[in-house]
Amino acid sequence: MKIIDGGICAAKGFTASGIHCGIRKNRTKKDLSLIYSEKIASAAAVYTTNLVKGATIDVTKKNIADGKAQAVICNSGNANTCNADGIEVAEKMCSLVADELKIDKKDVVVASTGVIGQPLDIEPIKNSIPELVKNLGNNSQDAANGIMTTDTKIKEIAVSFNIGGTECKIGGIAKGSGMIHPDMATMLVFITTDCAITSKMLQNALSSDIKDTFNMVSVDGDTSTNDMVTVLANGMAENNEIDTFGEDFDTFMKALNTVTVYLCRCIAADGEGATKMLECKVEGANDSLTAKKVAKSIICSSLTKAAMFGADANWGRILCAIGYAKCDVDVKKVDVSFKSKMGIIDVCKNGSGIEFSEEKAKEILLEDEIEILVKLGDGSGSATAWGCDLTYDYVKINGDYRT
Amino acid sequence: MKIIDGGICAAKGFTASGIHCGIRKNRTKKDLSLIYSEKIASAAAVYTTNLVKGATIDVTKKNIADGKAQAVICNSGNANTCNADGIEVAEKMCSLVADELKIDKKDVVVASTGVIGQPLDIEPIKNSIPELVKNLGNNSQDAANGIMTTDTKIKEIAVSFNIGGTECKIGGIAKGSGMIHPDMATMLVFITTDCAITSKMLQNALSSDIKDTFNMVSVDGDTSTNDMVTVLANGMAENNEIDTFGEDFDTFMKALNTVTVYLCRCIAADGEGATKMLECKVEGANDSLTAKKVAKSIICSSLTKAAMFGADANWGRILCAIGYAKCDVDVKKVDVSFKSKMGIIDVCKNGSGIEFSEEKAKEILLEDEIEILVKLGDGSGSATAWGCDLTYDYVKINGDYRT
Repeated sequence: MKIIDGGICAAKGFTASGIHCGIRKNRTKKDLSLIYSEKIASAAAVYTTNLVKGATIDVTKKNIADGKAQAVICNSGNANTCNADGIEVAEKMCSLVADELKIDKKDVVVASTGVIGQPLDIEPIKNSIPELVKNLGNNSQDAANGIMTTDTKIKEIAVSFNIGGTECKIGGIAKGSGMIHPDMATMLVFITTDCAITSKMLQNALSSDIKDTFNMVSVDGDTSTNDMVTVLANGMAENNEIDTFGEDFDTFMKALNTVTVYLCRCIAADGEGATKMLECKVEGANDSLTAKKVAKSIICSSLTKAAMFGADANWGRILCAIGYAKCDVDVKKVDVSFKSKMGIIDVCKNGSGIEFSEEKAKEILLEDEIEILVKLGDGSGSATAWGCDLTYDYVKINGDYRT
Repeated sequence: MKIIDGGICAAKGFTASGIHCGIRKNRTKKDLSLIYSEKIASAAAVYTTNLVKGATIDVTKKNIADGKAQAVICNSGNANTCNADGIEVAEKMCSLVADELKIDKKDVVVASTGVIGQPLDIEPIKNSIPELVKNLGNNSQDAANGIMTTDTKIKEIAVSFNIGGTECKIGGIAKGSGMIHPDMATMLVFITTDCAITSKMLQNALSSDIKDTFNMVSVDGDTSTNDMVTVLANGMAENNEIDTFGEDFDTFMKALNTVTVYLCRCIAADGEGATKMLECKVEGANDSLTAKKVAKSIICSSLTKAAMFGADANWGRILCAIGYAKCDVDVKKVDVSFKSKMGIIDVCKNGSGIEFSEEKAKEILLEDEIEILVKLGDGSGSATAWGCDLTYDYVKINGDYRT
């Protein structure tokens, strides 16, 4: 398996485009993206668990109930959520793009992200769809740009892998910066692959993968209303179709996981206002669920996040977060260390502080990727969670998001 | 019932003091407080549910297991948590103060608050206890100051009430600014009353009251390791002792609730970095548990808190927080309004946005006490939660708390 260029257009038969259609006032930021597969693809998706759901969630669920899709249309700048005409607008987005592409409107995945509770005007979308379709090409970055909200960086990756001697490719783009605290899926992630795989096995792969990837990312504890992760697999690599568990499925899972972990790290690093990506690795838990709960509790702690912003080795806040994680943990056996490319430092052994060099700790914590290593000393359960620091800019960005 | 002066010294037989003993470097800030009752008092307490507990929690639990106490000693600047010698130091605090007061060391409530994981030196405490005892008097404010950490304001109140024709008094002090997200009790609160009440009924009153008061306050989602609320009732008002449920108990509950609600509001308003106190009132829930979950979800949402800082009527974030509260709520029936002393404005009806004057909304939200009113339209369950906005200063305070 190797990392390759091309993002969502790396896999055979996929093209993409992104333009500024006018939902957002800033004309330098694209706000409408399209992904298209030459052939109808197997489709799988996972969605937000928030009771308040974007209209696009309902429409997409219905459209891919048959496990098939051929295009993805997504706007940013407006979530089309809590709008009386939300479903109607989302369906209109599908039919407009389907007409232009000459495909079935039931084969369109639709997504929206942005402000909640403001009506989404279909006009700028309608007017721009011909250009959007005309621009379809090897334009993964344009599509990645078009789905961004407060994101500061494009998030894309692709890898190639081998199924039974046939080269396959898988690529993904993501957006997600604030309102990130997954419960099923999270943020917007679109993944494309030319691997032949049944929609059932594709859904198995995705549903299994997100438990250890997107469900382990938190920026601010707010589970969004519009989260969606979708995978389209069009089979154009012409491998023997994966229709059961086994070696080929495992290979596909590994490639998918490379894409999703990379995107998780991108999303955490680009969390609203973030200056640091935090990766919390918990080992020695009674089971993996305990390890996950502990890792997420640490990554979600406002006080730990603020301490990391200040490069302050305040490990007591990590112990505190472990203590309220509602898990069976013996706090007298907990070890904590901090690690970055500047080295590693132990700060807590058996639940109590140990002497350490504050100077060395500062040096480690001033880096922009920090690992928080926790050993619980109970069993063999482990987990990793990703997050970011809490900064002035998070407050600034969210103090006047709408204006 | 009426509000009176005197704080924890308002009730007969209670005196207090607070001094700077040297745990904190800043000599203008007191760091050691004492509360004393002439007579042995009925004692009740509730504690943090964090698995990582301050050593003082264990010692206090043991000391008041018999339902009796006569003094409270509390330091700030160091939590005495995650220290190998924590229990020993906490017990030493009790015996030193007991010796000086000539009372039983088992009748001392001990509490510590501040940085986790740094050994607490007993020397400055030991050296200052004679002066602390000598200063005992009508000094509620000194004691309130001595327990403060990042608090910017003293929090105290007292009320008088009538039990069977006898005037009783109850007063309290509190500290709490960050690491506030209760699960049982929260922060440090010390309440004194001269009402005669058995320790069993006192515990009933406290355990019942905190469910609607301290358990409904959140500043940052971090449940502290040292939370404690204690009530001492010395009976010196000489009312007929309350030993059962009934009218007198209800009167006592009402007085206690006046004290606790006031302190909750103070704690929320003085949340770390806060510029606004948020009071979220939820009505029309299927039951009160649902109302509580919804109210707390809103008050804990980082995005809602940041929007309030920016005086931005971004009600979509409130709907979002309702949606992930994991409750049985019909989001299509939710109404949301904002209220302050500048008026009230409806922003969402039946789960969808309605037209409103952004100018008027801004005017309302620029005030420093904001009510977020939510009607769920399902039943008669209601609840109130208290919190504060999320500001630059929260990040600043917690980015370098230890330095």
